Amino acid sequence: MTTSSETSLSDASLAAESGNRKRVLSGMRPTGKLHLGNYMGALHNWVGMQDEYECYFFIADYHALTTDYADPSSVKQNTLEVGMDFLAAGLDPERSALFIQSHVVQHAELHLLLSMITSLGWLERVPSYKEQQENIVGKDLTTYGFLGYPLLQSADILVYQPQFVPVGQDQAAHVELTREIARRFNGYYCGKKSEDLSEVLPEPQALLTPSPKLPGTDGRKMSKSYGNFILLTDPEDEIRKKLKTMVTDPARVRRSDPGNPDKCPVGDLHKVFSSPETLAKVYEGCTTAGIGCIECKGWAADSIVAALRPIQERRRPFEENPELVWEILEDGGAKARKRAEQTMVEVREVMGLSPRRRGSIGT
Amino acid sequence: MTTSSETSLSDASLAAESGNRKRVLSGMRPTGKLHLGNYMGALHNWVGMQDEYECYFFIADYHALTTDYADPSSVKQNTLEVGMDFLAAGLDPERSALFIQSHVVQHAELHLLLSMITSLGWLERVPSYKEQQENIVGKDLTTYGFLGYPLLQSADILVYQPQFVPVGQDQAAHVELTREIARRFNGYYCGKKSEDLSEVLPEPQALLTPSPKLPGTDGRKMSKSYGNFILLTDPEDEIRKKLKTMVTDPARVRRSDPGNPDKCPVGDLHKVFSSPETLAKVYEGCTTAGIGCIECKGWAADSIVAALRPIQERRRPFEENPELVWEILEDGGAKARKRAEQTMVEVREVMGLSPRRRGSIGT
Ligand code: SF4
Ligand code: SF4
Repeated sequence: MTTSSETSLSDASLAAESGNRKRVLSGMRPTGKLHLGNYMGALHNWVGMQDEYECYFFIADYHALTTDYADPSSVKQNTLEVGMDFLAAGLDPERSALFIQSHVVQHAELHLLLSMITSLGWLERVPSYKEQQENIVGKDLTTYGFLGYPLLQSADILVYQPQFVPVGQDQAAHVELTREIARRFNGYYCGKKSEDLSEVLPEPQALLTPSPKLPGTDGRKMSKSYGNFILLTDPEDEIRKKLKTMVTDPARVRRSDPGNPDKCPVGDLHKVFSSPETLAKVYEGCTTAGIGCIECKGWAADSIVAALRPIQERRRPFEENPELVWEILEDGGAKARKRAEQTMVEVREVMGLSPRRRGSIGT
Repeated sequence: MTTSSETSLSDASLAAESGNRKRVLSGMRPTGKLHLGNYMGALHNWVGMQDEYECYFFIADYHALTTDYADPSSVKQNTLEVGMDFLAAGLDPERSALFIQSHVVQHAELHLLLSMITSLGWLERVPSYKEQQENIVGKDLTTYGFLGYPLLQSADILVYQPQFVPVGQDQAAHVELTREIARRFNGYYCGKKSEDLSEVLPEPQALLTPSPKLPGTDGRKMSKSYGNFILLTDPEDEIRKKLKTMVTDPARVRRSDPGNPDKCPVGDLHKVFSSPETLAKVYEGCTTAGIGCIECKGWAADSIVAALRPIQERRRPFEENPELVWEILEDGGAKARKRAEQTMVEVREVMGLSPRRRGSIGT
């Protein structure tokens, strides 16, 4: 155990020797205002990593174009909203680089260079490729860019030479592809010239992060495309209204039927957001038909409102002055470019490209 | 007709108002020392364009990696050799931007952005795609990068918003793809926001340039891969030696058989490099069996040696000081980045990406 002064001392020394902290990289598409699922599945975990790791968190606007190329008119506003939610959730620009993917052109450069060694078969076999082509209707996804998006993800990662990539269970396949590409790259280009460049793109580890079950109001996974979400920015009355419409344990038809919180989406929300005391009351009241679902949903709303209060308070100054957000993302971009360029100098060298003599690019 | 002083005056005024000159863009892979076929098919034409057009000529090192990714160890030296041959042939860094493709990262950035709107079918249908996959043995070309190389060519072109692309007849299909991509881009993204951005990527015209028949010593098209070439750097004795082994009109078996220069590869070389007087002597002597092939080949060697003399003289100072070449390519890269970034600012805006507030990238 450490006292608070010792903690801040150790924080400072960690920051000072940031060269020794392990690097971590993750990104999120600019889908607009984020919801509870985005928060618990990613942001919340990222916030907790900031002391231990050197963190790079980006808004993946290039990726938005892989599916929304036909009408990108909302990408910029959505990028801003996600930037605000990053900050509202507690990502700290003093400790982490928060930036926009397209501001770091090295992502595009590494994407092109890695394309040379990436088998078409690898991309065609990425599970989500065929799946998304089938699921996303009304969009022509037989494009070169859509086929290449897992490669772009690999470039996004490898350009920071990170030790870890925090991912949910469902993205593990993408990290596998990244490791496969890194392995081929190192096999072709490294370990021949010099000890220093024996492994330019080390294989990152997937850092499996908790992603608790977070159902939307219809009981399915919370998602923008299902319209079943609660936004981080939803005001209290909106949250209460959404909770009221939420599906419950189907076995509890009448007020007098006992229910089971383990089979109820509202129960899932309680497990994530409510205190142990409230949770105990829910189990007790539900299984004995001692409480009604309306009362239970009211408690769930209380818990969510309380959890979102500090987030919404942190967000307010940025909403009032979006310029602040753009400035922070600009600073983060500069920090990210500096790190990415360091990787690219090595990548270009081992791939036989001619060095630029006068300074580097885009830093 | 103008006197020489008027010409230089008009040169100067053209240079001063370079904003009004039409732009032209072309590139060449770093295959190492160039041969007569490269010279007559491209370089020679480029040299003649420098007064009339604002020219961007680049060494396509990214493209070299599309096929030679497994061993890029010679790309850098080959890039230098091509740079020397550019200068030796008479490309003038004062008038044209001579540069290395990978020094202008905007090529990679536009490649990625255009990938979003490029149909896989368009790429699979490019005639040279299947052809090369069949012809190039011992290399695995089922890669994402190889499939995308015509798209990279399109990005190479469009990033300079040029009016013209000088190409030989055989590359016309690539310009067609470029025009198709530009058309789709403008259709999706332009003409909605403002008059200014009504056509961010104008469709360039193919500028069909003469490419005289230039056979190698075995009678097939001169090519690095056939080993039948005469290099721009070959010394006189080497040229004479190569000419001696050259195939001739197959009908001329004995010294006493008449021949036909129109059916003889040596005759083709005469047509390109010899004076009208010499050419007349060749026709006369060959068709009457008045000269032997050895004599005729000697004359062809004379003509080629004379044509290469000024080229080899211009090359010498650069061979003695390669640092000069790197410096020139660096300057050219800066010039090219400046122009390319101008395009990218518009491309990013109409594609909905967030502008960078602090300066541009890589200029
Ligand atoms: S009481 Fe609560 S946990 Fe039980 S079924 Fe109703 S909403 Fe679900
Ligand atoms: S004389 Fe000259 S042109 Fe005629 S066949 Fe011999 S090499 Fe060819």
